[in-house]
Amino acid sequence: MLGEQKKKERAIPVSVIKRLPIYYRYLTILLSREVERISSRELAAKLGLTASQIRQDLSYFGNFGQRGYGYRVKELQKTIGEILGLNNNMQLVLVGAGNLGRAIVNYPNFSKRGFYFKAIFDNNEEVIGEFIGGIKVLHLDDLAGYLEENEIDIGVIATPPEAAAEIAHQLVRGGVKGIWNFAPVSLNLDKEVIVENVHISESLLTLSFRIKEKYGD
Amino acid sequence: MLGEQKKKERAIPVSVIKRLPIYYRYLTILLSREVERISSRELAAKLGLTASQIRQDLSYFGNFGQRGYGYRVKELQKTIGEILGLNNNMQLVLVGAGNLGRAIVNYPNFSKRGFYFKAIFDNNEEVIGEFIGGIKVLHLDDLAGYLEENEIDIGVIATPPEAAAEIAHQLVRGGVKGIWNFAPVSLNLDKEVIVENVHISESLLTLSFRIKEKYGD
Repeated sequence: MLGEQKKKERAIPVSVIKRLPIYYRYLTILLSREVERISSRELAAKLGLTASQIRQDLSYFGNFGQRGYGYRVKELQKTIGEILGLNNNMQLVLVGAGNLGRAIVNYPNFSKRGFYFKAIFDNNEEVIGEFIGGIKVLHLDDLAGYLEENEIDIGVIATPPEAAAEIAHQLVRGGVKGIWNFAPVSLNLDKEVIVENVHISESLLTLSFRIKEKYGD
Repeated sequence: MLGEQKKKERAIPVSVIKRLPIYYRYLTILLSREVERISSRELAAKLGLTASQIRQDLSYFGNFGQRGYGYRVKELQKTIGEILGLNNNMQLVLVGAGNLGRAIVNYPNFSKRGFYFKAIFDNNEEVIGEFIGGIKVLHLDDLAGYLEENEIDIGVIATPPEAAAEIAHQLVRGGVKGIWNFAPVSLNLDKEVIVENVHISESLLTLSFRIKEKYGD
């Protein structure tokens, strides 16, 4: 019973989780400027949220504010950092060694944050054997065997859309806990696997819509 | 007065706008499967939202549902497509011709959806003069002059973080309406300019957090 209750208390909506890195990043900026306190209203204005939403979000993680005095930046940043697990130790494989895949592997600071790319897979003979960010590109046919022999936490998909579903299934069969998907498709997977999508075209459509709203066609 | 009222009615929260492409994509899949109606509950389960949130979101765009019968997929998809402006005519420039920039320019279907890359800028002598996706890479020093002579709607930033702020200001001075930012920094810009960020590292941190929530450290 107690265990269940504890579990219930820890349940945090995904929408809140998704905002944590945004809070974390901005709080880190504030810290570097030696700001000690910030009100929910200021945070809201800065992050494009409402003050009540911020108060509600942060209430999941403890009591960092005092009415009228704002949040204590340092404690809040530290706690969110711990929640986000900035001392991660996650092993990743990348599938798809095109431009996007290369950009992901070479993205700054992933290893500093504890995300380690262990292997890269592609089916294009021209790139197999090449080194990207110090990691050798292997043949896609070796993915299943690799996953059997190595414990991988996250599979990253940066393939053309038509290949993504099959690769996602291979990653799941290979035991990954999460999939980071850059391919513009919806992956219908076993609910046990956590999927995080980076919807690039959807982001551009959102921007376009907001421009039209403001400036007309 | 009437004009103001009309404007007020059209105001749609950014959070809702951001979900439209997700609705659109899924409705398009449903259409291809010849699904005629879908309930808010089914949509919710599929998209990881709540049924009441979906009903509230879609209520901004007209009456597509009938209690107990679900939404009419075809009409809803068409309307959202029109709202998203899938017949866009947006002119873009890209700054930053690294792997990420190359991936963006070569991303499938942007031109089909009316997004046209007109020029690419970089300050790396080694890539200047190169063609990416059929477009010549120009020197960053020519950006200001280019923007003066050409009407550009969207500036895309795919540079290292330390360069992003200065480039954003140049784009704003050059008259772009929107900035699509892939650099991992917050851009503090004039409110007139619409900024859409693709937060790649934040997405990975979210995934990592969700994995830890589920599987423990």
